[in-house]
Amino acid sequence: MGRKLIRNAVILTMNATDDVLHGDVLIEGNRIAKVGANLDAQADITIEAEGKVLLPGFVQTHIHLCQTLFRGRADDMALIDWLRKRIWPLEAAHSEDSVYYSAMLGIGELIRSGTTTILDMETVNHTESAFLAIRESGIRAVAGKVMMDHGTEVPPALQEDTEQSLQKSVDLLEKWHGAAGGRIQYAFCPRFVVSCTEELLVGVRDLSESYGVKVHTHASENETEIAIVEAERGMRNIVYLDHIGLARPNLILAHCIWLDEEERKIIRERGVKMTHCPGSNMKLASGIAQVALLHGEGIAVGIGADGAPCNNNLDMFQEMRLTAFLQKVQHGPTVMDARKVLRMATMGGAEVLGMQRDIGSVEEGKLADLQLLDLEDFHVYPSFDADWFSRVVYAATRGDVDTVLIDGEIVMEGRIVRTMDKKVVLKEADHALRRLLERI
Amino acid sequence: MGRKLIRNAVILTMNATDDVLHGDVLIEGNRIAKVGANLDAQADITIEAEGKVLLPGFVQTHIHLCQTLFRGRADDMALIDWLRKRIWPLEAAHSEDSVYYSAMLGIGELIRSGTTTILDMETVNHTESAFLAIRESGIRAVAGKVMMDHGTEVPPALQEDTEQSLQKSVDLLEKWHGAAGGRIQYAFCPRFVVSCTEELLVGVRDLSESYGVKVHTHASENETEIAIVEAERGMRNIVYLDHIGLARPNLILAHCIWLDEEERKIIRERGVKMTHCPGSNMKLASGIAQVALLHGEGIAVGIGADGAPCNNNLDMFQEMRLTAFLQKVQHGPTVMDARKVLRMATMGGAEVLGMQRDIGSVEEGKLADLQLLDLEDFHVYPSFDADWFSRVVYAATRGDVDTVLIDGEIVMEGRIVRTMDKKVVLKEADHALRRLLERI
Repeated sequence: MGRKLIRNAVILTMNATDDVLHGDVLIEGNRIAKVGANLDAQADITIEAEGKVLLPGFVQTHIHLCQTLFRGRADDMALIDWLRKRIWPLEAAHSEDSVYYSAMLGIGELIRSGTTTILDMETVNHTESAFLAIRESGIRAVAGKVMMDHGTEVPPALQEDTEQSLQKSVDLLEKWHGAAGGRIQYAFCPRFVVSCTEELLVGVRDLSESYGVKVHTHASENETEIAIVEAERGMRNIVYLDHIGLARPNLILAHCIWLDEEERKIIRERGVKMTHCPGSNMKLASGIAQVALLHGEGIAVGIGADGAPCNNNLDMFQEMRLTAFLQKVQHGPTVMDARKVLRMATMGGAEVLGMQRDIGSVEEGKLADLQLLDLEDFHVYPSFDADWFSRVVYAATRGDVDTVLIDGEIVMEGRIVRTMDKKVVLKEADHALRRLLERI
Repeated sequence: MGRKLIRNAVILTMNATDDVLHGDVLIEGNRIAKVGANLDAQADITIEAEGKVLLPGFVQTHIHLCQTLFRGRADDMALIDWLRKRIWPLEAAHSEDSVYYSAMLGIGELIRSGTTTILDMETVNHTESAFLAIRESGIRAVAGKVMMDHGTEVPPALQEDTEQSLQKSVDLLEKWHGAAGGRIQYAFCPRFVVSCTEELLVGVRDLSESYGVKVHTHASENETEIAIVEAERGMRNIVYLDHIGLARPNLILAHCIWLDEEERKIIRERGVKMTHCPGSNMKLASGIAQVALLHGEGIAVGIGADGAPCNNNLDMFQEMRLTAFLQKVQHGPTVMDARKVLRMATMGGAEVLGMQRDIGSVEEGKLADLQLLDLEDFHVYPSFDADWFSRVVYAATRGDVDTVLIDGEIVMEGRIVRTMDKKVVLKEADHALRRLLERI
C-alpha cells in the first residue's frame, strides 16, 4: 500500500481539543504516520486537497445491511407491525444472492456519504454473503448474524433453535473475526429481548466474554416492545438485561428511547454503550431518545441510520442534523451544538465500538479512515470566516464527500466508489429483489 | 423560446388524482402544451429523460434570500435573541452588493435542489438588488421588502417611519409586480406584529387589497413573540391580525406553531394561508406546528426552508423529510405519508400563493416549472416495483436533481445552474460578506 500524502487540507482532527489545522496528512500502510503543516515527505500517491476539508470517516453504530433491499417497502408503520408484517417476511425470503447485493447497495451508499465504519446486524441466514460484501467493498465493519429463538409471528425461516443460533454465531465468529487484516470484527446480535429466550441471552453473555467481542442488540425502542418484555420477564427491559448479567461494557444498545431513571443508572454504571437513531425513531414514530441527557451523564453515544426501510437513507449527514435539531426543539437551542454532534458521529462511534485508539479522529498512529469534503458549492457558502463545525454538520450533505479512505486504501475518489461497479450493483440489487419477492 | 420536448420520463404529475405516467411533456413557450405517451411532436430542443423522474418544481413559501450570506453565523440561539443579536445587526449592514450576492447564492442553492418558485421576504433596504438577482437567475418569485416601524433593539438602519415603509413598498411594487413576463410578483412583508405598528398593518391591509397582492408575514413562531404581542396588543397574535382586518385569503403566515383553537378557526374561516418551516422551527427550538391537523382541517399549507442562518440549507428534500418525520414522531406513523408531503411541496405551495392554476403540477396549460431527477444511485435503489412517492420524499436528495426548467427555460442542466457563474457567485458572496462584517 505504500505511502500516501494528503496535502493542504483544512483538517477537522476531532482530537481531544477539537483542533482545526491547515496542513498535510502522511499515511504509511493503513495508518496515519504524521499530521502537520508542510510535511516534507515522499509518497507514492499524493492527493491535492487545497480548498477541501479532511475529517475522520463517520462511524455508524447501528446498521442493517441486509435490509437495504427493502428500502421503501415498509413505510408509514410502527415498529412491531413493521417487523412482523414486512421486515421479517422479507428477511425470511433472503438468499445468499440477495443478502450480498443488499449489503453491496448499502455499503455503496455508506461510503458515498462518508461512513467508513459500521456496526451491522444481519439477518438469521446467509450472513456469510454479507461478510463477503464487507470484505470486497473495503468498509470497516463489526457485524454478526441476528439471533432469534423466541417470539410470535416469526416466519419459519427465521425461527432458530437456541443451540443452533449460538453455534452458527460462533462458526461465523471464528471465520470472520479479525479478517481482512483486522478490518472485520464479529459481534453477537441477539435481535431484542422480545425475540430471545433467556437461555440464548445468557449464552451470548458467556460467549462474548470468552471471545472478547461485542454484543449488539436493540433495546427500549418502542413502548409495545417494553410492554411485551415487562409482561414476559416481569421487569423493565434494561433492568432485565442487567438481571441476567448482559449489562456490561461490551454491550451496545440501539435506540434506548424509553428509559426510566433506574435504567439510565444501569447503563451509566455498567459502562453499557448506546446508539442514537433519530431518523429511524422519527419515521417509525418510536419516540425521541434523551440523547443530550444521556451523553451529558457520560454515557458513550454513537449515531446510526438503522436500516434503509425505516429511514430511508443511510446518511450520517442527515442523522447529524436530526440529532441536533430534535434535541433543540425539545430542550432548547443550546443543548446540542454542531461540534458535539460531529464528535458523536466520529469519536463517539469509536468509543461505542471500543475502537477509540484506532479510529474516530485524524491523529498520528490511528488507522487511515478519512473523508475529504469539497465544499465549493452554493449550499455550503459563504466560506469567509466560517465555523467549520457548523458548515459540516448543519449545511454539508452526502453529495459533498469527494474522497474516502478506509484502512489506508482509497475506496472513493472524485465521488466514484472504486471498490464496486455501481451499475452492476444497482442492476443486480433490482434482480435480487425481484426474485426475493417471487419467493414470498 | 420555441418548443421543447421531454421524452420518456416517469412523470409524477401531482394532478388531482396524483397520476404517475410514463411519457413525454411538450412545452410551447413558457407553458406545458401536452402531456402523454409517445407524443408525436417536433421540438427545437429535445431532452431525453429515459430512466429519469419528472415532477413539478418545488414551491417554497417562506424564504429570506437576504439572509443567505449569514449561513452559520447565528447557530444555537432562539428566535428573539437570534433576531436582535445577530440577524438584525447583519441585515442592517447590508449594501446593494451584499443583498445581490446573498440572493444569487440562495437562488443558486434553490435551483440546484429543485425549487422553482419562492415566496421571499427581503430586508428593509436594497430590495431592488434582490429583484435584479431574481430577474437574472430565472427563478419565479413573489418577493417584497420587509417592513419594520416598531419594536425594541432594532438597529437604526432598520428603523422605518410608517409612511416611508408603505411608500417604499408601493414604489417597489409598482416597478416589479408582474416583471419578467409575470415571473416576478410583489408581496407586502410586514416582519411580524412585534415589529409593526397597527397603523402600518392597517396600511398594508388596504394597499394589498387595492393592488390585489399577497401579504407575507411571520406569526406565532415563538412563545416569547406571542407574549410580546399579548402584552402590547392585549390579545393573541392571530386574534389581533383578525381584529385589524388582516386575516384574509391574501394573508400568508409563516410558522403558525403556537395556535389555540380560536386562532385555528380564524385561519380556517378567513381562508388565511400558512407555511410550515420544520427545519427552522427545530433549529431555533421554536416548537412543532400541528401541520397534519391544520392540513386536515382544509387549511392551505406550503413548506419553506426559511433563511439559511436558521436551517442551514434551503433544501426542499430535507424539509419534506422533516415534515413527515416530525408529525410521525408526534402523532404516529400514518399521520403524514410521502404523497401528502409531496403535494404540500408542490400544489400546496401553489395554493398558498394563489397560483394553483399556473404552477404546482405537470398538466397541460400550466407554466413549465419542472425538475428532472436522476435516481440511478445507491441511496435511491432498489428501483424494482418501487413506490415513486416514497423514493422521492424519503430517499432522494438535492444531489439527485439533474435538470430544472422555470417558465419554459432550462435554468439547470446536468446539475449545472446555467443562469449564473457559480465560481463568481461563491467568490463575490465571500467578498460581500467580508465587507459587510467590516461595516458592523
